[in-house]
Amino acid sequence: MAMQDRAIRTRQAILSAAAKVFEERGYQAATITEILAVAGVTKGALYFHFQSKEDLAEGVLSEQDQQLSVPERACKVQEFVDSVLLHAHRLRTDPMVRAGVRLTLDQRAEGLDRSGPFLRWGDIGRHLLQRAQAQGELLPHVTPSETADVVVGSFAGIQSMSQALSDYQDLMERTSSLLRHLLPSVVQSSVLTSVDLSESRGAKVLDEILELRRQAVAVQEPAGVGVS
Amino acid sequence: MAMQDRAIRTRQAILSAAAKVFEERGYQAATITEILAVAGVTKGALYFHFQSKEDLAEGVLSEQDQQLSVPERACKVQEFVDSVLLHAHRLRTDPMVRAGVRLTLDQRAEGLDRSGPFLRWGDIGRHLLQRAQAQGELLPHVTPSETADVVVGSFAGIQSMSQALSDYQDLMERTSSLLRHLLPSVVQSSVLTSVDLSESRGAKVLDEILELRRQAVAVQEPAGVGVS
Repeated sequence: MAMQDRAIRTRQAILSAAAKVFEERGYQAATITEILAVAGVTKGALYFHFQSKEDLAEGVLSEQDQQLSVPERACKVQEFVDSVLLHAHRLRTDPMVRAGVRLTLDQRAEGLDRSGPFLRWGDIGRHLLQRAQAQGELLPHVTPSETADVVVGSFAGIQSMSQALSDYQDLMERTSSLLRHLLPSVVQSSVLTSVDLSESRGAKVLDEILELRRQAVAVQEPAGVGVS
Repeated sequence: MAMQDRAIRTRQAILSAAAKVFEERGYQAATITEILAVAGVTKGALYFHFQSKEDLAEGVLSEQDQQLSVPERACKVQEFVDSVLLHAHRLRTDPMVRAGVRLTLDQRAEGLDRSGPFLRWGDIGRHLLQRAQAQGELLPHVTPSETADVVVGSFAGIQSMSQALSDYQDLMERTSSLLRHLLPSVVQSSVLTSVDLSESRGAKVLDEILELRRQAVAVQEPAGVGVS
């Protein structure tokens, strides 16, 4: 168990180092030598977990996707909005998420399949919007897959613009503004009036998830156990 | 006059070569040596026009902005839509426009001010939307600068998604879908019903502009003149 923990920690250290180097250098210019130096692990340790630079980038991309799932909401449009605002908030605050987004948008990362995150985020969005549609929350003409793609694609650009213009300082404001522009053509107005699109929502959702996790851990590990 | 023409042509050849190299290599990895080789010009000729790699990239970025202006329309929302669809169409078909967009979205192009195109496109959009507002075409709550930013940012992401998923094959479809999602929260519905958002609109607008140019040249150069 201790060994497994260490392996997980080593893998995590390598991915964090890779994220840092990919973000600074870009995919093409990044080298495994540099990632090794930043991670402070041996070549053997790295190749135990990852076979190539491409493999490392795929690892960073799938970390980005490791959703902190938004708790289930009665209103599926709110759950959809919360997923977007949570992602925006994490992008501002989590270097791994940031590196993943940059790799996805790196148009010269040849040999790397950048379509994954677009497709996976599209699927998550479609799924939530289909449930919203089943509950009668959407306008009759909406096609969930098309709308999900529009939101995923638009957000990718909004974050890029925010990064270029303010180094993400205005990301929550721009994301909220995007949703206020898109949702009236998608959601029943009676539903929309009770949806929280505010800029502070992403941070609130993250706090809520972390609190739920703490509670779950407290239940699994009664006092005294788990401290060693 | 012949000398000036040649200088313009050399400058254009250098910019085309720079666009090609920036697109293939990315800003950081691109070298002036490589741009020289692709352009087939002397070092002296290049440095006559451009002082540095940064200067070359700025040149490509401002070529991207050199708008083929959409002809004035009675309906300013249509003029706005036409600007977006024309840009999407040129992005699909013009390597210089493509290179400019890629430089703009290259988050590792350090030392290069990538904010320019976002700001300039934002200004163009704001200006058109302000005129639309003055004519009563927009909904009362709309702030033209905010909406222009949302459209510019969203489009940047939609094009990136289209490039990653279909190498721009579905760009016109996705752009039209974006506009259909955004405009109902911005434009009076009585105006929106008569706006053409179709996927073929970008190509049509380009043909219209080129035809107007041909006519202007024909007026300036009566038959026989201009052929040498």
